[in-house]
Amino acid sequence: MREITIDQLDDIARGAAVLGTGGGGDPHIGKLLAKAAMVDRPPVTLLDVNELADDDLIVPTAMMGAPTVMVEKIPAGNEAVSALRRLGDLLGQEIRATMPIEAGGVNSMIPFSVAATFGIPIVDCDGMGRAFPELQMVTPTIWGISATPMAMADDKGNSVVLDTISNQWTETFARSLTVDMGASALIALYPMSGKQVREATIPATLTYIQTIGTVIRESREQHTDPVIAVCEATNGHHIWSGKVGDVERRTVGGFARGTATIEGNSEFDGRTLELDFQNEFLVARAGDDVLATTPDLIAVLDEETGEPVTTEALRYGFRVAVIAMPSDPRWRTPAGIELVGPAHFGYDVPFVPVEQRFGT
Amino acid sequence: MREITIDQLDDIARGAAVLGTGGGGDPHIGKLLAKAAMVDRPPVTLLDVNELADDDLIVPTAMMGAPTVMVEKIPAGNEAVSALRRLGDLLGQEIRATMPIEAGGVNSMIPFSVAATFGIPIVDCDGMGRAFPELQMVTPTIWGISATPMAMADDKGNSVVLDTISNQWTETFARSLTVDMGASALIALYPMSGKQVREATIPATLTYIQTIGTVIRESREQHTDPVIAVCEATNGHHIWSGKVGDVERRTVGGFARGTATIEGNSEFDGRTLELDFQNEFLVARAGDDVLATTPDLIAVLDEETGEPVTTEALRYGFRVAVIAMPSDPRWRTPAGIELVGPAHFGYDVPFVPVEQRFGT
Repeated sequence: MREITIDQLDDIARGAAVLGTGGGGDPHIGKLLAKAAMVDRPPVTLLDVNELADDDLIVPTAMMGAPTVMVEKIPAGNEAVSALRRLGDLLGQEIRATMPIEAGGVNSMIPFSVAATFGIPIVDCDGMGRAFPELQMVTPTIWGISATPMAMADDKGNSVVLDTISNQWTETFARSLTVDMGASALIALYPMSGKQVREATIPATLTYIQTIGTVIRESREQHTDPVIAVCEATNGHHIWSGKVGDVERRTVGGFARGTATIEGNSEFDGRTLELDFQNEFLVARAGDDVLATTPDLIAVLDEETGEPVTTEALRYGFRVAVIAMPSDPRWRTPAGIELVGPAHFGYDVPFVPVEQRFGT
Repeated sequence: MREITIDQLDDIARGAAVLGTGGGGDPHIGKLLAKAAMVDRPPVTLLDVNELADDDLIVPTAMMGAPTVMVEKIPAGNEAVSALRRLGDLLGQEIRATMPIEAGGVNSMIPFSVAATFGIPIVDCDGMGRAFPELQMVTPTIWGISATPMAMADDKGNSVVLDTISNQWTETFARSLTVDMGASALIALYPMSGKQVREATIPATLTYIQTIGTVIRESREQHTDPVIAVCEATNGHHIWSGKVGDVERRTVGGFARGTATIEGNSEFDGRTLELDFQNEFLVARAGDDVLATTPDLIAVLDEETGEPVTTEALRYGFRVAVIAMPSDPRWRTPAGIELVGPAHFGYDVPFVPVEQRFGT
């Protein structure tokens, strides 16, 4: 158990953007929401998963849809709290704590806003250890944990409770409703017992992203190489450096799909890296060589500052470094690969752990 | 209070198709569902609105979306009952009875299936006195009664509860979910007290459609004119007779919009009637003369048999009679006209009661 204060949010949000692997939404927006909720309130308590009782009720909170829309309707804390309260009433049990279901990107921040407003702790864990585009793509799905009952709330005062037969159905319904709600909704979902959280989620993710964010800031302050610092903090591999070339984007099925090319510098013999993304970076290839694939994490950092770069921010001429980080072992199981591996996203490429490709 | 047995359903469904005014879905399908639920069960009790206690809980049940889809997944009674039960649990009060929210078309029949399966009575009333394409287009909306909490259920076992700030939002969310649920969903909505039902719904609608269906059958059996019989039963006006000419259909915003022309016979000087529809027939015009508009009811009957003809069944060469029937006075208030009058559907035509156009 420890306390998180407003001044720690910058590092946490920066680290979340690294695990956001190009997607997950800009955590800067989430940070604004969280800071607005935390100001003039006591610090938020961060609980270790081992501090939960088996039958504690834990309810993750998140934003679904486009975070850019949300920034115009601050404070969003109220909607998330309303979704959370709705679910608590329905389940008839006191909610012990909230947690992020996705720690990469904006959703690392929403639970801070909720925790501060609702006056409950956050559990130091998440359901992805990164960002993924759909709500069934979480480790609790592997454990057969239902996303429902799930509550959704919008900024107008509408709310919906879903009860579905699969997390894929939840995604389908919630996606349509999010569009109707104005492209952005606050959600409370995957209610879990303390025991389930310990078994089926990824522990210590918030501490992990805080560490990543901290080493980037410190390396900048100390004029050391932030890319090396991130690799050390994440067991990551620096797989490419160069200049962003063409970025081709297309919207397919509501997702931002595309490919960015990165012209390698001399260290990479002037070859070109192709980075495919669907909200998040999914596959990195140089010619016929696959360098990294989902569920391992592919992040693009500004070469100089170490700041993570989202797919939307990728522009011609940017000088960037690409790092590949091992995903949580839960994602590397057959069930995990089936849920979020390359084949799920339409790539006929086997998953090979990044440390096997590059040596440890 | 009286009992409805399976053998009365044919007349009720036929009358419902007249009030369906070309839309509302084919009641034949609803009849199959209702008969499947009523067989081997006691008759369904029909309650007069005056038999309700002020604080009785009444929950209308209906099908949303395309009834043609539903016929492949009989029995639908279970989903409707599941939606109803969901709402009863949520409200924490025993459900005294169900009722139709729309008596025109398939939704006249769904409550029979629910009542038989759930073992509760039906109230002799509805929320439209006809069919309309959207769920906020009911007289309870005029009284400020919320469509929510509303429960939806599909044939797969998914369910959703909506809580919205307006009945228009309910329509928006429920329409999207219906599409996701496979184009058809069973719903329980507009929970009302007995007092509200008496004030804000249209009384005796089920008896009314049973009467209409009965006179059509009897006039056929007795070789009398069914068109005259329907006009007598409904205070309707026989405004046109002739042969169906062109039927132009287009799908706009998910609705079946279009125009049918009816070449008048000699009695109508060979002029042509234009019938505009959006699911239901909305406006009848001959040249520059407007003959009838929503919310008054425009029905097309097979000239020989008196069977009501839906917009989908309209075909070149059919010999039909067109009748216009006065709508319930609740629809003719300023609030009613705003909700479902010609302007709402995009027609720059004032509403004039049909009996004023044709004399009584």
